[in-house]
Amino acid sequence: MKKLLLLSILILFGFGASAQQSLNSKINDISPEINPDGTVTFRLVAPKAVKVEITGDLLEQQPVKTNRGMEMAPVPVEMKENADGVWEWTTPKPLEPELYRYAYIVDGLRILDPNNVHIIRDVAEMCNIFIIGGGQADLYKVQDVPHGTVASVWYDSPAVGFDRRITVYTPAGYENKANAKKRYPVIYILHGAGGDEEAWLHLGRATQILDNLIAAGKAEPMIAVFTNEYMNQEAEVGESSLGLNRPGFMLDVSREIPKGVTFEKGFIDIQNFVDNTYRTIAKKSGRAICGLSMGGGYTVRTAYTYPQNFDYVGVFSAAFSPATREEAKAVEDAAFAAEFKTAPKLYWIGMGKTDFLYQSGVAHRQLFDSKGYKYEYYESEGGHIWRNWSLYLSIFASKCFK
Amino acid sequence: MKKLLLLSILILFGFGASAQQSLNSKINDISPEINPDGTVTFRLVAPKAVKVEITGDLLEQQPVKTNRGMEMAPVPVEMKENADGVWEWTTPKPLEPELYRYAYIVDGLRILDPNNVHIIRDVAEMCNIFIIGGGQADLYKVQDVPHGTVASVWYDSPAVGFDRRITVYTPAGYENKANAKKRYPVIYILHGAGGDEEAWLHLGRATQILDNLIAAGKAEPMIAVFTNEYMNQEAEVGESSLGLNRPGFMLDVSREIPKGVTFEKGFIDIQNFVDNTYRTIAKKSGRAICGLSMGGGYTVRTAYTYPQNFDYVGVFSAAFSPATREEAKAVEDAAFAAEFKTAPKLYWIGMGKTDFLYQSGVAHRQLFDSKGYKYEYYESEGGHIWRNWSLYLSIFASKCFK
Repeated sequence: MKKLLLLSILILFGFGASAQQSLNSKINDISPEINPDGTVTFRLVAPKAVKVEITGDLLEQQPVKTNRGMEMAPVPVEMKENADGVWEWTTPKPLEPELYRYAYIVDGLRILDPNNVHIIRDVAEMCNIFIIGGGQADLYKVQDVPHGTVASVWYDSPAVGFDRRITVYTPAGYENKANAKKRYPVIYILHGAGGDEEAWLHLGRATQILDNLIAAGKAEPMIAVFTNEYMNQEAEVGESSLGLNRPGFMLDVSREIPKGVTFEKGFIDIQNFVDNTYRTIAKKSGRAICGLSMGGGYTVRTAYTYPQNFDYVGVFSAAFSPATREEAKAVEDAAFAAEFKTAPKLYWIGMGKTDFLYQSGVAHRQLFDSKGYKYEYYESEGGHIWRNWSLYLSIFASKCFK
Repeated sequence: MKKLLLLSILILFGFGASAQQSLNSKINDISPEINPDGTVTFRLVAPKAVKVEITGDLLEQQPVKTNRGMEMAPVPVEMKENADGVWEWTTPKPLEPELYRYAYIVDGLRILDPNNVHIIRDVAEMCNIFIIGGGQADLYKVQDVPHGTVASVWYDSPAVGFDRRITVYTPAGYENKANAKKRYPVIYILHGAGGDEEAWLHLGRATQILDNLIAAGKAEPMIAVFTNEYMNQEAEVGESSLGLNRPGFMLDVSREIPKGVTFEKGFIDIQNFVDNTYRTIAKKSGRAICGLSMGGGYTVRTAYTYPQNFDYVGVFSAAFSPATREEAKAVEDAAFAAEFKTAPKLYWIGMGKTDFLYQSGVAHRQLFDSKGYKYEYYESEGGHIWRNWSLYLSIFASKCFK
């Protein structure tokens, strides 16, 4: 009887091999706490610590010198210890709607918040996240709307000679029998340097954005394909046969590939796989491509490498400068000319005012202006940050396939 | 020209908004390091720390008192600081092949290894992981074999009145046009208390196990469906419309559901969705169900609630004791009788020798023995741990659909 009772309790209230602590949540375990007035309180139990700071993009930024020049960066703030050894800090003002990242610095050691399991990886750095909802930031939340399917899918890449992973989003309803004959447009979404086929999902909230835009009727139902632009990688670090390596751009987790296989060259394997596997609208009017930073550069070049493949091109904070050497310029000019012979319906360029690549964007637009190639330009506050890229994707995706 | 060069370097070697540090990997940044002799070295740069320990299942276990009684638990080991403020520890012996978990304790504060981005969540506790390959543990690695698709999929659950998330694994080849007419058996895989539709993937390495068994011809190609047994949850914490909550069993992240909706009742919505959406063998011979701990209990009850639905039933370290009260016993006996009227082809029970639920397993087997219901029994070393559940899944999945 006693055993039965024990089992009932276990079954009703659950138990984990090593997680009893979560059964006894106390205020000290709550962090971050979004207060009714919109301020946010952070807590860390660390009675032996001498100094605890918080860092992250919710803090005031100031110019600091980095190896890219002067950039805005957060100034860590000291937290205050109470009598129980709990370090606490509350934002002086309500936070604007946004997805925020943070971490603690305990006596010089950067650590994650043990009270917050919501963690994202940016290349090799882990951060905790939280969302202040409202306005644009509501697009980043999981809402009570129909959700698309998010799948990790492996495709055979003849260009490199091994299987590689992509992430594929199919919009809500795609799998319904009622839609069995319906075909969907495809948006290819490219990460920046150090990223992979998961970067846009975790750092950019891309599938939440698509779910929410589509549910609100602000974007067409579309398939989204997230590529991995490092053609010498099978997949995200930890998801390839090279093991649980440390991430570190392409150098640490790479395989041998045939010489000269660029992302642009290998892209056609992805497009072929997607068109063969999903119910796509397999023509120019049914394809968009966009990418950020390094992936913005790849977007420009993939679009002109296949000059009649994409009706929608989105270039976000792109690592792209028009060629200047005579020979390269001639090749590039010819490629753009082929692309704009029948121009894409939309060529969208987004850039942040303080982006360290701002001048490259100016040069790109000057070239297009000089040739009479039409584009839309969107300039936002801030620099080379995910906050801008999530915003650009929201705007660009809303304009595609209409 | 200088700008061009800068851009080329950026594009070739990549850059991240906040991750330059990973460009300068040094020995202090390598942790864990699996040494040629099979020992493992851990490192943490923490010059201001007074005491640094490592904890995890790679350490010696000793009996400790928990709220479940005496259990084996690791004894944290002190690391040693060198002149550079780097704390280091090397295992005294080579580690056996296995997936291991660990964390550091810095002056009493449990933290993750900042050098290791491979992190799993067990309910509310995060751990770093690494794998020592060889033997059974090779099943846990991503190998250079064809990989199945892993998808987060939302299904409409009439039982509860909202959409809920499942994880669906379709084996390599499922999406190939050549297999368009091929149907596949389905294994339903249930988590334990505090788990969700992702638990078996991250903690149990289930999709790696299936990829590797299928590639080696040791298991039939099968679809695997990972459910969330908390019918009042939409999805894993952070993936539901209730926000980026703290995980804590079903209490913190739950919605209202109609009274009396148990997992067993709601299961049929999942089965219907799967049979309607995927190319399944939609009959008893094409269905398996298995689960661990609480999910083992649900497995027992789901199998007898739908007595002719499953030819393969796997009960791992189950939170299931036969009913003892007369009325409940009569109902349960009748249910088992209906199930064993045409017995499943395989009823497989796995249990660890030191599992705190060991006696429940004894009672379960005694009941089946007394009724003459056939089952296979497998007993392993150790207790109520993922190491056993990954092993049980490997064995059980190999025996299904043959």
